[in-house]
Amino acid sequence: MYDQGSACIAVDAMGSDRGPAEIVAAIKLALENFPDLDPVILVGQEDILEPLLIKEGIDGHPKISLVHASQIIEMHDKPLQGMKTKKDSSMARSIELVKDGKAQVVVSCGNTGSLTAIGTIRLRPMPGVERPALASIMPHKTGHFVLIDAGANPAAKPEQISHNAILGSNYCKLALGIENPRVGLMTIGTEEGKGNEIVNNTNSILKQLSGIINYSGPIEGFQLFENHVDVVVCDGFTGNIVLKTCESLFNLLKDFMTEELGRNPIRGLGYLMSKGAYDAIKNQLKPERYGGAPLLGLNGNILKAHGSSNREAVMNAIRIAHEIIRKDLNTQIVEDIEKANSFIYQTVS
Amino acid sequence: MYDQGSACIAVDAMGSDRGPAEIVAAIKLALENFPDLDPVILVGQEDILEPLLIKEGIDGHPKISLVHASQIIEMHDKPLQGMKTKKDSSMARSIELVKDGKAQVVVSCGNTGSLTAIGTIRLRPMPGVERPALASIMPHKTGHFVLIDAGANPAAKPEQISHNAILGSNYCKLALGIENPRVGLMTIGTEEGKGNEIVNNTNSILKQLSGIINYSGPIEGFQLFENHVDVVVCDGFTGNIVLKTCESLFNLLKDFMTEELGRNPIRGLGYLMSKGAYDAIKNQLKPERYGGAPLLGLNGNILKAHGSSNREAVMNAIRIAHEIIRKDLNTQIVEDIEKANSFIYQTVS
Repeated sequence: MYDQGSACIAVDAMGSDRGPAEIVAAIKLALENFPDLDPVILVGQEDILEPLLIKEGIDGHPKISLVHASQIIEMHDKPLQGMKTKKDSSMARSIELVKDGKAQVVVSCGNTGSLTAIGTIRLRPMPGVERPALASIMPHKTGHFVLIDAGANPAAKPEQISHNAILGSNYCKLALGIENPRVGLMTIGTEEGKGNEIVNNTNSILKQLSGIINYSGPIEGFQLFENHVDVVVCDGFTGNIVLKTCESLFNLLKDFMTEELGRNPIRGLGYLMSKGAYDAIKNQLKPERYGGAPLLGLNGNILKAHGSSNREAVMNAIRIAHEIIRKDLNTQIVEDIEKANSFIYQTVS
Repeated sequence: MYDQGSACIAVDAMGSDRGPAEIVAAIKLALENFPDLDPVILVGQEDILEPLLIKEGIDGHPKISLVHASQIIEMHDKPLQGMKTKKDSSMARSIELVKDGKAQVVVSCGNTGSLTAIGTIRLRPMPGVERPALASIMPHKTGHFVLIDAGANPAAKPEQISHNAILGSNYCKLALGIENPRVGLMTIGTEEGKGNEIVNNTNSILKQLSGIINYSGPIEGFQLFENHVDVVVCDGFTGNIVLKTCESLFNLLKDFMTEELGRNPIRGLGYLMSKGAYDAIKNQLKPERYGGAPLLGLNGNILKAHGSSNREAVMNAIRIAHEIIRKDLNTQIVEDIEKANSFIYQTVS
C-alpha cells in the first residue's frame, strides 16, 4: 500500500470490457496530463493490478494507492443480487471508500444498474434530494447539452424531476463551462396542457425557481438537437429511452451507410475521398471527450463511464472527477436544492 | 356535385403545406394507379378546388365528388378552439362525412392535435376501446415496424396501452403485410421490475393475450431498430418523444454531413461519387411510401399524412385508406378487442 492524500478519486479497475490494463493506462495518461490531479485509489484484484502498474511504470507513484477487492460485478449481474452476493466487488469497495470519506468520487465502467443501486443504498441521497439522477452529455447543432435523468429513476415525481433540473444545471456549468445554462423540460406539445400530468406539474414548479435555475420552459423532441437549451430535464424512463433511441438510430444509419457505400467501387472511392467528413462527425459525437455519465444527487459522486471506454475516455472521466472535487460540485448543489425546496414542496399540494 | 358510391374516402384538400393543388394531383395519381379505388369525396373550398380539378382533367370523373367547406384549420390553431370556431373547416366536414356514414376513412395533412380532438369527439372510440392511438411506420435494419401510440394519448393507462398492441398489430398486418406481427412493449430494462409501474402492469396484461397478439415481451430503446419486433407499443408521451427524437437526430446528422462534406472540393467530389448511397438511404427512410399515420381505435378511420407530403405521399395515404376499407380493418380490430377485454379488465384490479 502506498501513501494516500485527503481528497481522492477511487477508480474501479475491474468494470471495463477492455479489461483492467486499459484502466491502468488511463490513470497513467491522467497523471501525465493533469499535474494537479488528486490522488487515485485503484480498486480491484491486487494480483492482477500490481503487475499492470509495474508494466506502465507507475507502481511507485506517490499519487497511486491500491485497495484489494476479490470480486467483480459482471454486466449481467442483477443489481440487488450483486450487492448481496458480491460484497467484496471492486464496485462495492470503491463506493465504500467514498462512504468512509477516503475518496470523494468513484470512476467505474461497470453496470449502471448496479452502480445506481449500490451507490444509492450506501451513499444515500444528499440533503434535500429524494433520488439520484444520471446525467448524460449529448451533442447538438453547435455544441453539447446535458440530458438528465438518463435512467436512474424511472418513476419520478414532479419534485424529483425538479431536483433533476438543479442537478443538471450545476453539472452543466462544470462539465460544459456554460455559465447560466438554459434549462428545458421535455414534453410533447405545448398547447392546452398537452403532455401528461407529471410533466405539467413539474413545469409549474420549475417556473417558480427563477432565482436558482434559468428555466426556458417546455422543449419538444423535435427541438432536442437545435441548441435551444443547455440542459434537458425529464424522468428517468423518458431519458433512458431518448438516450438508447439515439444510440440505436445512429447505429442503424451507420450500418445503412456502410452497406450502401460498399455496393460498388465508385461509391467506395467516393467514401475514401470524403472520409474526413465521417471522421469529423464521429469525433463530434463520441462520448469519450466528456468523461462519462455522472450519478448526481448522492453524498459523494459516481462517474459511470461506458463499458467499452478506451483509455482516453477513462482519462477524461478521471479529469471530470478531479473537477468535481476542485469545484466542490456537491456543496453548490446542496445550496441550490435547499433554496429550491421551499418552492418545490410548497407548489406540490 | 357528382355521383357518390357507398364506400368512400373523404380527402381534406386544405391541410397541406403544399396547397390543395398537390392534393388534387395526388387524387389523379391514385385514380390512375389504383383502378379499383373507392370513390373520393374531396372536401374544401369549392371555388379553389373546381378549377384545380379542371386543370388536372378529372373534373367530370365519376369517382370524384366535392363537398364545400369554407374554413381551414391552420397548423397553429389550438385543437379545441379550432373545433368550436371553425365548424365549417374542411377537416371537420371530412370527419362528419365519416360520422354520417357517407365515407369510411378521412385522409388529411392537417394538424395532428386537431384531427385527434375532432376525430375522438365526433367519431368516438370503437366498442371496447377507451382512447384512439396514432400509429407511425418507422424503418429498421431490414424493413419497417409500427410504433404505437405515437402521440394521441399521453397519459395512457395499462388497459389503453394493451389496446394499442391490438390496434398496432392489426394495422401492421394491413400496412406491412406481416402475417403474425411480433409485438414488443417499450421499456428501459428488464431486470428486477425496472421500467415503471404502468409498463410493468401492461406487460402482465399483454402476457395474457397470446391467442390474440404475438407478444414478444419487453423491448428496450437500444433494440428499436434491430428488427426484433414488428410492432412497438408504448404510451403516447413516450411514442411521441421517440418519433420526434428520431426525426431531430436524423436532421442533425444530415446537417453535420452537409457541413462536413462541403468543407473542401475533395470531400465534395467524394460526395458526388457516393451520392447514390445517400439517395438510397433517404429513400429507405422516407415516410411517403407508407401512407401517413393512422389514428386507430375510432368508429371510422383517420389517416394523418405529414403536412409537407408531396403528391406521391398523399397518393399512398389514399391507397392505404382503400386497403383499410377493402380489408375491413375496423371489424377485425373490434373482434380482437372484444376477445382481449375479458383478460384486460380481469388482470387490472
